Parts: sequence; structure tokens; C-alpha cells
Amino acid sequence: MADEALFQFLHNEVIQYVYKSAENGEMENGRCITRLENMGFRVGQGLIERFTKDTARFKDELDIMKFICKDFWTSVFKKQIDNLRTNHQGIYVLQDNKFRLLNQLSAGKQYLEHAPKYLAFSCGLVRGGLSNLGVKSIVTAEVSVMPACKFQVMIQK
Amino acid sequence: MADEALFQFLHNEVIQYVYKSAENGEMENGRCITRLENMGFRVGQGLIERFTKDTARFKDELDIMKFICKDFWTSVFKKQIDNLRTNHQGIYVLQDNKFRLLNQLSAGKQYLEHAPKYLAFSCGLVRGGLSNLGVKSIVTAEVSVMPACKFQVMIQK
Repeated sequence: MADEALFQFLHNEVIQYVYKSAENGEMENGRCITRLENMGFRVGQGLIERFTKDTARFKDELDIMKFICKDFWTSVFKKQIDNLRTNHQGIYVLQDNKFRLLNQLSAGKQYLEHAPKYLAFSCGLVRGGLSNLGVKSIVTAEVSVMPACKFQVMIQK
Repeated sequence: MADEALFQFLHNEVIQYVYKSAENGEMENGRCITRLENMGFRVGQGLIERFTKDTARFKDELDIMKFICKDFWTSVFKKQIDNLRTNHQGIYVLQDNKFRLLNQLSAGKQYLEHAPKYLAFSCGLVRGGLSNLGVKSIVTAEVSVMPACKFQVMIQK
């Protein structure tokens, strides 16, 4: 629980810091998101190396996605992905009905616009993890009602 | 273990980010340290509230310091402080013989100059924790041989 809180607090600070340094230097919202995403990417790369140290080789792409949804997600976000869908053509949708990093935000509609900055790091995390497993992807996130959240992974062939 | 790695990787990214944004904007080393320290301060404030939610009221300053050295340190850094000294006049020295955030750095002397940026956040963490327990302080850190590290806490009356 302690470590969990530590990560959440630090994550919040990072968001604030990135947006604050943006105010000074006139960086627009998109670039802040990119920076957070990039941080997540590198953290994801590091994490997946640790997590897969002792796992068997993955059979295929779907096998990798299942690993992300179960082991990776549980390690980082303390629960599994609730639903994984795919069109079997390189698009995966990972649904988390109670996403840890949105859990502290009020579910009011007026806060919905702030959701993207709380998701950028995690999008990067997934992209970085996949990347180090040899899967190039684009990861985006979408919220309709907090704290539920959908991550869309588009595999780049 | 996962959460631990998550915090360490994110901590490294934050340091890099702060120093990188400094390069662009000509911010000197001291200001980077201050920013990291401030982040730590706010994280420490948040953490201590969680950790002390169910603890008994502290008897005195020393009692608080012991809590920081044991419970707080264990939660955040996975081990206790190895040695706590005080001059009984408001100065405390907390020695950690194997500090978690220096553990990944090479112990070579040439890296010693990089140690301060890996300690700033943690100094803030302690200062923030103490601050929310009503103890104003100045916290500095000192390394002679990595990964051992001394934190000096000067209580401000």
C-alpha cells in the first residue's frame, strides 16, 4: 500500500511539474502529453525487462497482450484488465473499469477534460513494455465515465 | 518488487526530466535540486498522512524521528535506517548504509558528484513528512562512499 501511494503521489507531482514548466515556457498541452508519454515509455521498457526475466517465451502477439493485461497490469496497477478485445487485425482494446490513476479524481463530468494528462504516462508504459517485447505500437486512451478507462493498442507492422 | 522498480524508474525519469528542462532554459544545478526537493516535500506530506492514519500520538520529537527511521523508511525504502544519532539539540543524523536510490549507481568515485541529484527528492520526502507532523526542519544529505548515505535533519524552532 505504501509503495502504491508513493507511485501515485509521485505520478501526480510529475504531471504538475510538466504542466507547470509548460506555463513558463509556453508549451502547449499536446507537448506535455507527449513528454509524459515518453517518460512512461522508458519506465515501461525498464519494467518489462524485470517482469519477463523468468517467463517463458511468448507464443504470439495475443500471448504478449495477455501478459500485459494480467501480469504487467497487476504489478503496476494492482488489478487485471477487466476486458480485452481484439479485431484480430492488430487492434486491441483493454478496458479497466476502475483505473488506479483515475480513482482519486472526482467522477464529475467537469473533470473529464483533465483525464488525458492522467493517462498519458500509462499509455507510454504500455507502449514501452510492448516495444521491448518487439511489438511496435501506438497506444491511446479514452474515458467516458471515470474511473473506467479504455486503452487502445494499434500494432504497427 | 514491481512497485519498487516502478518508483525507482519513475524517480530516475523525473531527475532526467528536471535536468533536461534545465539545459534548455539555462537553469543551474541548484535550482534543479530545489525542484526535486520540492516534489519530494509534497510527496512526503501525502505519504505521512497515510502512514500515520492509525498510529498513536507521538510523545516527542525523538519519537517522531524514530517513526521516520523505522516505519516511514521501511515503507518507502524497504529497509530501516541503520543508525540514528542526535546531539539532543535539534540535530539528527540518519545513516543508511545501503540507500535504495543509490544502489543502482556504480560506486566509483567519479560518480560521486552525481549523488546529490539522487538524494534531493528523498531529502524533501523527509522534510515533507516531518512538516506534516508539525516539525519544521532543514534536511541535507551527504555521501562519502556509495551506496551509504547520511541524512542530516536540523530542526527549526
